[in-house]
Amino acid sequence: MSSTFTTTRLVQFSETDMAGIVHFSCFYKYMEEAEHEFFRSLGLSIMLKQNDGSIIGWPRVSAKCSFKAPARYEDLLEIRLNIERIGVKSLTLQYDFWRDDTLIAQGTMKTVCCLFQHDKEMQSIEIPATYQKKFEQ
Amino acid sequence: MSSTFTTTRLVQFSETDMAGIVHFSCFYKYMEEAEHEFFRSLGLSIMLKQNDGSIIGWPRVSAKCSFKAPARYEDLLEIRLNIERIGVKSLTLQYDFWRDDTLIAQGTMKTVCCLFQHDKEMQSIEIPATYQKKFEQ
Amino acid sequence: MSSTFTTTRLVQFSETDMAGIVHFSCFYKYMEEAEHEFFRSLGLSIMLKQNDGSIIGWPRVSAKCSFKAPARYEDLLEIRLNIERIGVKSLTLQYDFWRDDTLIAQGTMKTVCCLFQHDKEMQSIEIPATYQKKFEQ
Amino acid sequence: MSSTFTTTRLVQFSETDMAGIVHFSCFYKYMEEAEHEFFRSLGLSIMLKQNDGSIIGWPRVSAKCSFKAPARYEDLLEIRLNIERIGVKSLTLQYDFWRDDTLIAQGTMKTVCCLFQHDKEMQSIEIPATYQKKFEQ
Repeated sequence: MSSTFTTTRLVQFSETDMAGIVHFSCFYKYMEEAEHEFFRSLGLSIMLKQNDGSIIGWPRVSAKCSFKAPARYEDLLEIRLNIERIGVKSLTLQYDFWRDDTLIAQGTMKTVCCLFQHDKEMQSIEIPATYQKKFEQ
Repeated sequence: MSSTFTTTRLVQFSETDMAGIVHFSCFYKYMEEAEHEFFRSLGLSIMLKQNDGSIIGWPRVSAKCSFKAPARYEDLLEIRLNIERIGVKSLTLQYDFWRDDTLIAQGTMKTVCCLFQHDKEMQSIEIPATYQKKFEQ
Repeated sequence: MSSTFTTTRLVQFSETDMAGIVHFSCFYKYMEEAEHEFFRSLGLSIMLKQNDGSIIGWPRVSAKCSFKAPARYEDLLEIRLNIERIGVKSLTLQYDFWRDDTLIAQGTMKTVCCLFQHDKEMQSIEIPATYQKKFEQ
Repeated sequence: MSSTFTTTRLVQFSETDMAGIVHFSCFYKYMEEAEHEFFRSLGLSIMLKQNDGSIIGWPRVSAKCSFKAPARYEDLLEIRLNIERIGVKSLTLQYDFWRDDTLIAQGTMKTVCCLFQHDKEMQSIEIPATYQKKFEQ
């Protein structure tokens, strides 16, 4: 849990706004993309179909982000992801966004492990042991 | 079919880009929003659940748009929607975007009537008579 | 400051994801749209051009949201906005999202009053008295 | 002009909709991202600052796309970009989207070379010789 997962993201033109900087709402998508890449790096997926046709997914409980410096078109952002907490049913990930030596933003997202079954309400479940083990590596 | 359905859309800040104008990709969302409002005005929905749990939806076959003049933050766009063609399985709608007397954009979208069933590939179907009648009014 | 500004937002199709619910990142756009509507209701704009050509804008310091219940396509969300704090340079707004009697989400956004001048870095400034007075009403 | 520029794009979760497939409006962003990557591969940028502070940009004249087969979360799309036409002031690029042997979508975007100057309306200009030469390689 002390190790950091690192990825990069190039800022796209459509992500800027008329103030000439990245629209703040994009950082939540960047966090999600990094989270999903982290899951893939562990051989997992954020939407994993089970043998019975149900799906294990990870809806958000909460997400926050602080914006330290503006990011601009074609900036290459380095995203450093750390596990903040593995709960019984929830997972809290923390993200730092850097452009070279400049801290751009810092965010945290808490997700909850859920079972999606056809035509039923989604239901929170304990994080399966196979996930738990991989997160703890 | 000669009548026009009209709605308005206020340009939001997040829809602008660093060139200070509405990002072109937003016009496709504006067309879709107008289309869905048009469906609702007829007592229909773009995703209509049937008694057997299947859903009648309208995925895109093609969409195009020409951009005549830039739109900006807080512009109130008037969207005029016309039915261009009602096919056996497809529906083609045409859209004009105006800001006062300025033509901003013109687009066309062709959609196809499809049945979505759980765990099956979606399948194109003939437009149900109930829809057909309402479109022709 | 004890009064609540209320607006509504209809969930659009493109705002849903494959889990069948509104993607969490949309709530940050909903908050921004409500904020801008609140500004307009006071005769203000989030991007106000000054006589010297500079612009007073309100970039984000931080934004957070907790998700209580899923929202779905064509849900009509009621958004209740309250001023949490008017600082010297910053403004903190709090948002509750309701669908009928169900609390969908709760968020907070802190923005800072900034001057945008051509070819200069944006700079935080004290909230102008004209804004201050209107917020306090 | 007979050569093809190829890139890939991984479908992100937020790009899917409640029908379980990529929302059609995303393909216009995919085309733009590929276009900008193509520009960078030539040592150009879609927003290039000139010595006098003005910017050469490429707003859209029109964009269209046909959707052949649905794309889904975590699909790796191959995007093949070809120059369809280099006009005096405009550039028309054509895009094919493939997932393995399945053609997903085909699009075309026409852009016009424009000069953006501070506090002036943008103005179409002839494509600079330096750009022309690079496109023709």
